Formats: sequence, structure tokens, C-alpha cells
Amino acid sequence: MENQNKGSIGGVEGGKEVTMVGKLKSKGACDLLLRLLALVLTLSATIVLGVDKQTKIVQLKIAPSLPPLDVPATAKWHYLSACVFFVVSNAIACAYAALSVLLSVANRGGKKGLGMLFVILDTLMVALLFSSIGATGSIGVMGYQGNSHVQWNKVCNVFGKFCNQVAASLVLSFLGSIAFMLLVMVATLRLHQK
Amino acid sequence: MENQNKGSIGGVEGGKEVTMVGKLKSKGACDLLLRLLALVLTLSATIVLGVDKQTKIVQLKIAPSLPPLDVPATAKWHYLSACVFFVVSNAIACAYAALSVLLSVANRGGKKGLGMLFVILDTLMVALLFSSIGATGSIGVMGYQGNSHVQWNKVCNVFGKFCNQVAASLVLSFLGSIAFMLLVMVATLRLHQK
Repeated sequence: MENQNKGSIGGVEGGKEVTMVGKLKSKGACDLLLRLLALVLTLSATIVLGVDKQTKIVQLKIAPSLPPLDVPATAKWHYLSACVFFVVSNAIACAYAALSVLLSVANRGGKKGLGMLFVILDTLMVALLFSSIGATGSIGVMGYQGNSHVQWNKVCNVFGKFCNQVAASLVLSFLGSIAFMLLVMVATLRLHQK
Repeated sequence: MENQNKGSIGGVEGGKEVTMVGKLKSKGACDLLLRLLALVLTLSATIVLGVDKQTKIVQLKIAPSLPPLDVPATAKWHYLSACVFFVVSNAIACAYAALSVLLSVANRGGKKGLGMLFVILDTLMVALLFSSIGATGSIGVMGYQGNSHVQWNKVCNVFGKFCNQVAASLVLSFLGSIAFMLLVMVATLRLHQK
């Protein structure tokens, strides 16, 4: 009778262990999936803004008596410091995501120390990405709308394709940074349940 | 002999428990201090930018034959959408910090569920604050330096006091968001050691 009880208790404990291992594995897979997603999204954002360039022929009037001249004008991402910051931040986040995917695969057991380090670095990536999104986003809004108070005219009516590509890379980076935010939350959930 | 051993083991366990409780208490105090710091810093950032206003007399030339006119020009924070976003974000972070201080004091025991919720909301505050810092920061850089490619002239040579006040509130908000980042890390550390 005692043995039977012991057996059943052992069985329940074994079952609990199996469920726990299963939970940890599913969370590990979720973590890896989010890291891969962050990697792809930040890489795409870097490339989409990194190749952004548009040349347009604009009419320039030198003197009222002369007809306007057709001058080619080019918009490049590195003309704006906010865009440079955006590309560099996304490249850093992408490199970190790639490294963390490798480390996650190498440490399938799920060491707590590594989990802690990931939470800290993921939080730093959230801060870095969101600040660069804010920086480029506000310059983008200024480009689309302009501002009469500071006399900054809108430029997206001329360089529409360039601005749309900036907007696309902003969306991609925003989704990437949400993936990093979810990683912080998933990691905390994992530490919480261990 | 057996009893002695048992006693010593009990003593060690008791000691461990006391150390653990001490650690938890010191971490709770650290958490509360960081929350108060975040509250004060985001409140200061909100006020410093919220009261930012500068009026200057600028010379306006209407026609080449007429002498320039002295016209008063005013710079206000709500003329720029990035500054509006900054003030609103800091006000939200400040309100959340105040609420979380109250909840932290009310839950001195340190419920894990509340700790989890705090990590999630603190991460959201990091994202919100950093995006608003990036947005206002990039407009500030544009105001200080201007950009010849998009023909946006610098305005901080005219509204120097206004720009310096924006810079001060950016520093305050940056320190506040670092407090929120540390809160995420401290909370993870606490969940990790429980």
C-alpha cells in the first residue's frame, strides 16, 4: 500500500516534470521564433532604408527674366542624421538578434544567467530601436507635413517614393522592436515559472 | 548527535531565510527608490517642456525700399508635434510611476503576479519614453544645425533659450527612462532569485 502510494506520487511528480520540460521547450521555441522574427524585421528595415535614394528633376528659377532650369535633385538616406541613426540602430539590433539566436540554440538547457543577460540586452534593444523609430518618425512627419512656425517646408510632395520607403522601413523596425519587447516579457514569464 | 546536526541544519536554513528576506527587502527598497526617481524625473521633464515659451523681436523685410519691421515671434512647445508627443509621453510615464509607487507600497510582500505586470508596463514605458526622446531629440538637432539638403534652416540661433530648455527636458526624460530600464532589470533579478 505504501509502495503503491509512493509509486503514484512518483508518477505524479514525473508527470509534473514532463509538463514542466514541455512548457520550457515550448517557451524556448517561442523565444527562438521571436528572435528570428526580430532578426528578419530589423535586417529588412536596415536594407529598405539603406538602399533608399530618389533622383528627381526640379525646376529652378535663377532670375525672373530667364526661363526655369531643370536641375536633378537627389534624396539619400545619409543626408539626414536621424536616418543614419535609424540604419545604425537597426544594424546593431539585427547583429545582436543573430548572435542571440546562435547562443539560444547552443544553450538549449536554458541557463538562468544567460536568460538574465538576454533580458538586459533585449531591453537595451527596445530602447535603441524605439529611440531611432521616434527620431526618423518625427523627421518623416515633418517631411510629409512641414511646419509653418519654423518655416520648414514639406519635401515628401517632391520625393514621394523616398518618403514611402522611409515609412515602410519604420513599420518593419516597429514590428521588430515589438518582437524584442515580447522577448523581454517571455523571458520574465520563463524566469517567473522556473 | 543527530539532534545537533538537525539543529545546525535548521540554523543554517533559518539564516538563509533571514538573508533571503533581507535581500528581498533591500531589492524592494531599491525598486521603490527607482520608481520615485522615475516619477520625479518624468514630472520635471513634463514641466520643463510644458512651460517652454520664448518671444523674440525679429526684423522682417517686406520690401527692399522700406526699412525692416520689428515683429514679435513666439516659440511654443505645442507648435511642434514631436514636443506634444514628448510632453504627453512623459505625463503618462509620470502618472504610471505614481500609481506603481502606491501599488508597490501597498504590496510590500512582493506578489509575483504584480511583479510580472510591473515588468511588462515598465518595458512599455521604456519604449514610450525612448521613442518620444528620439522624436524630440531629432527635431532639436535639426533646430540647432539645420539641413541644407531639405532646406530647413536652424532656428536655435534665434530661440536659444527655448532650445536649451528642450535640451534640459530631454536630459531629465532620458534619466527617467534609464530608471525605468533599471526597474525592468531589478524586477527580473528579483524573479530570478526567488
